[in-house]
Amino acid sequence: MSKNQHTAAIIIIGNEILSGRTQDKNVQFIAQRLSDLGIRLCEVRMVPDIEGRIVKAVNNVRKQYDYVFTTGGIGPTHDDITPASVAKSFKVPLIRDKGVEKILRKRCNLSGDVFVMADAPEGAVWIHNDTGPGFYLENVFVMAGVPSVAQEVFAKIEPMLVGGNKFISKSVTIFAGESKIRDMLYNMQDKFSQLQIGSYPFVDADKKWYTDIVVRSQNSEEIEIAIKWLVKKLDTLELRYKEVM
Amino acid sequence: MSKNQHTAAIIIIGNEILSGRTQDKNVQFIAQRLSDLGIRLCEVRMVPDIEGRIVKAVNNVRKQYDYVFTTGGIGPTHDDITPASVAKSFKVPLIRDKGVEKILRKRCNLSGDVFVMADAPEGAVWIHNDTGPGFYLENVFVMAGVPSVAQEVFAKIEPMLVGGNKFISKSVTIFAGESKIRDMLYNMQDKFSQLQIGSYPFVDADKKWYTDIVVRSQNSEEIEIAIKWLVKKLDTLELRYKEVM
Repeated sequence: MSKNQHTAAIIIIGNEILSGRTQDKNVQFIAQRLSDLGIRLCEVRMVPDIEGRIVKAVNNVRKQYDYVFTTGGIGPTHDDITPASVAKSFKVPLIRDKGVEKILRKRCNLSGDVFVMADAPEGAVWIHNDTGPGFYLENVFVMAGVPSVAQEVFAKIEPMLVGGNKFISKSVTIFAGESKIRDMLYNMQDKFSQLQIGSYPFVDADKKWYTDIVVRSQNSEEIEIAIKWLVKKLDTLELRYKEVM
Repeated sequence: MSKNQHTAAIIIIGNEILSGRTQDKNVQFIAQRLSDLGIRLCEVRMVPDIEGRIVKAVNNVRKQYDYVFTTGGIGPTHDDITPASVAKSFKVPLIRDKGVEKILRKRCNLSGDVFVMADAPEGAVWIHNDTGPGFYLENVFVMAGVPSVAQEVFAKIEPMLVGGNKFISKSVTIFAGESKIRDMLYNMQDKFSQLQIGSYPFVDADKKWYTDIVVRSQNSEEIEIAIKWLVKKLDTLELRYKEVM
């Protein structure tokens, strides 16, 4: 695998996502950061708080991709089963970290057996931070579901990740629906087959259709050449457009 | 499978989600509607615009769940490969529907070979609507990625779905972090094992922690009993809370 071909998957764990109660925000945040780090996000799975389902998802993706990020299901309550599930995925026991337990005792006025928050699979490395727990085991990074906490933990993880050139994208908004530019887009993708070219229609309040053409790559020069080609074609087709960075 | 045990999965198709460019909104919308319909959403997958990945995801989930909903990748351009991928999943050819083609010709001032939008897998049934394409084949429902279009198509699909009693949830916001209520929650889940009980911590601008306890079920009486039990326990623990519907 070349150094620009690092891959990742995300597993979002939580009944609150699948019930529709909560709008997930972790996928987009992690996706954007991975994009900047030059790591290709290949897949996302959202699974319920059921051990068997988490184990299956973790085992399915951790062998396929360089990195796996999970959010949700870590904390002290009955539905926080991610650490135990990750331990089961790796067939290792769950171990209480005395250092983390000590930090928890110092930090909070805690009651009950909340020191389960100091439990992680044997061999896991704790990610120390100010607000919440997090750890990694081999290529699986385990974070909380609360977006602000996940973001803080991810910032600590970033320096550990090996990526490639940043993914850059440039987009052109065309004042027309996709049907007007279909043939041109086929030609464009043929001509620039090494680029990821996306066509995203959207509709405004007056029910007028537009299309965003997004060109994405780890090579900014190739993007520039493709955008120039596109703009020239749009002029020939007499279609209005605006370039957006 | 009892009539209250209908299950579903969602497949979100699109590079724009995995690149972080677009915040997905279809999962939450479909999840909420399924919840109202008494259908349990068991899994979500987000995959790129790559035929092999779509085929694999569709085939993996369509045999596991009663219903599969896909969004994204239908339209006239080079990256709209969902219909062909679904056809491949079912090992049937892609067929142009003359009726749909006629509607498209009438509706729009189209250029180029955009009538690929009238292509669907052999055996698929078209879902007629005013804004965009959609069809289903066996238990797989294929919708556009643009949220407004997906929502319009989903409204046409709803009457075809067999569900159960509506999932109801009631929540109590506790003015404390999860650690204070851990033992109580374990007791609660033991006592009301037939209910889905979720514990969701969140933090306000002043960095104060709260916890939402969400009780979810298809049986409203059971929810009421559990909430009464919870409120009594919170009074005993002298914890402040507010009930939210």
